[in-house]
Amino acid sequence: MRFDVFTLFTAGLKPYLEISILQRAIQSGLIDVHLHDIRSWTHDRHHVTDDTPYGGGGGMVMKPEPIFAAVEEVMGVPLEAPVVLMTPQGKVFTQRMAQELAAYPRIGLLCGRYEGVDERVRRHLVTHEISIGDYVLTGGELPALVLIDAITRLIPGALGDPTGAADDSHASGLLEYPHYTRPPEFRGWGVPEVLLSGNHAEIERWRREQALLRTWQRRPDMLEQTELSEADRKYLDSLLRKTDS
Amino acid sequence: MRFDVFTLFTAGLKPYLEISILQRAIQSGLIDVHLHDIRSWTHDRHHVTDDTPYGGGGGMVMKPEPIFAAVEEVMGVPLEAPVVLMTPQGKVFTQRMAQELAAYPRIGLLCGRYEGVDERVRRHLVTHEISIGDYVLTGGELPALVLIDAITRLIPGALGDPTGAADDSHASGLLEYPHYTRPPEFRGWGVPEVLLSGNHAEIERWRREQALLRTWQRRPDMLEQTELSEADRKYLDSLLRKTDS
Repeated sequence: MRFDVFTLFTAGLKPYLEISILQRAIQSGLIDVHLHDIRSWTHDRHHVTDDTPYGGGGGMVMKPEPIFAAVEEVMGVPLEAPVVLMTPQGKVFTQRMAQELAAYPRIGLLCGRYEGVDERVRRHLVTHEISIGDYVLTGGELPALVLIDAITRLIPGALGDPTGAADDSHASGLLEYPHYTRPPEFRGWGVPEVLLSGNHAEIERWRREQALLRTWQRRPDMLEQTELSEADRKYLDSLLRKTDS
Repeated sequence: MRFDVFTLFTAGLKPYLEISILQRAIQSGLIDVHLHDIRSWTHDRHHVTDDTPYGGGGGMVMKPEPIFAAVEEVMGVPLEAPVVLMTPQGKVFTQRMAQELAAYPRIGLLCGRYEGVDERVRRHLVTHEISIGDYVLTGGELPALVLIDAITRLIPGALGDPTGAADDSHASGLLEYPHYTRPPEFRGWGVPEVLLSGNHAEIERWRREQALLRTWQRRPDMLEQTELSEADRKYLDSLLRKTDS
């Protein structure tokens, strides 16, 4: 899968691609990340990419010309792949969207500076607008890395463990169960007996119930959107009865 | 404000701190970011920070000892400031949380690898757990940068423009209005007349209505949590009437 990232700050992005799972995915050819400096598509001496907003007010607005030129030269006319504007006004990114986007062979990611991108970019150039959450950041660079990271994990082979992605929080529609590793006792705090029992059916059941419990305590909204078995429902009912009594 | 970040990948984080607003905030002494490599608090030859999970299953779990040692040495015992575990199981980060956290003089950010941190860290060490959204990432490093970025923008003086943060999407409780800059016509696409009019009251009204319109179209959930004036409500009513007819 190929990512084309359009940004004013390629240097701030690159190192994150050189560690851990993204590095391995790049080295093994599973993904290919091209960073494009929008400034290279300016034609004036000072490589100006922004200007003051019509109508006044603070902040600067990214000019349309260099963005159109960069995206069209790299992604083709008409666009050969989706081009996503990273913006707090976009659809809020979720694990489901990561799965949908992972199906494309190629994606363009346009990093706005959040003071604003000229509206004509939004209306006439990009195909998607995505936000990573309800907060304000300085630019689309971290959001672009978030998308690359979340999507790459879903590409078969990117994680060492083939089942690695399936159990993660949000992948299953539930928050993940608690993890413990050695030592079995740390400062007097032990590990739940069941995890040391070797009884895999019991461990499986404990983990599922812990995932349900944690989701119920912290993110009950997620339970409404998840497929639950009959055993799951019984367990949740037992939690409710405990609360009532 | 001081951020202490605990991670296994300091090198992947550093460059993002060296650009744009974060760089300026650091240079001007508004913020101070200390990156701590958890590996430095291991005592074995191979600097092992993870181990297999009790109960089996894929992935590795971050061991408790080096994390406790790192956080306690840097943040004190008892902790001198909040320590936030970045985890998809945490409370979902919002602009309001950024505002709350911006009031602290110091924050610790602990970057879990999402395969999991030993549960005893979660229960007995950290004070907060925060998620940046409902998706799975490789580690807490991007989320930590997201928090640093969102919080730093709120520190007085961090943005060049003193009113810069107030108009942003989410800061006002609405998505932001459209921005336009030169040229006034680009490929036949113009700029709304009102923005060229010089009539500031009209411009103000148009922008407010556009922000309302956009929020209504894209994120109606946000309207329920925002303070609206009588004029705002009238405008939204007019939108509803248009849809009905």
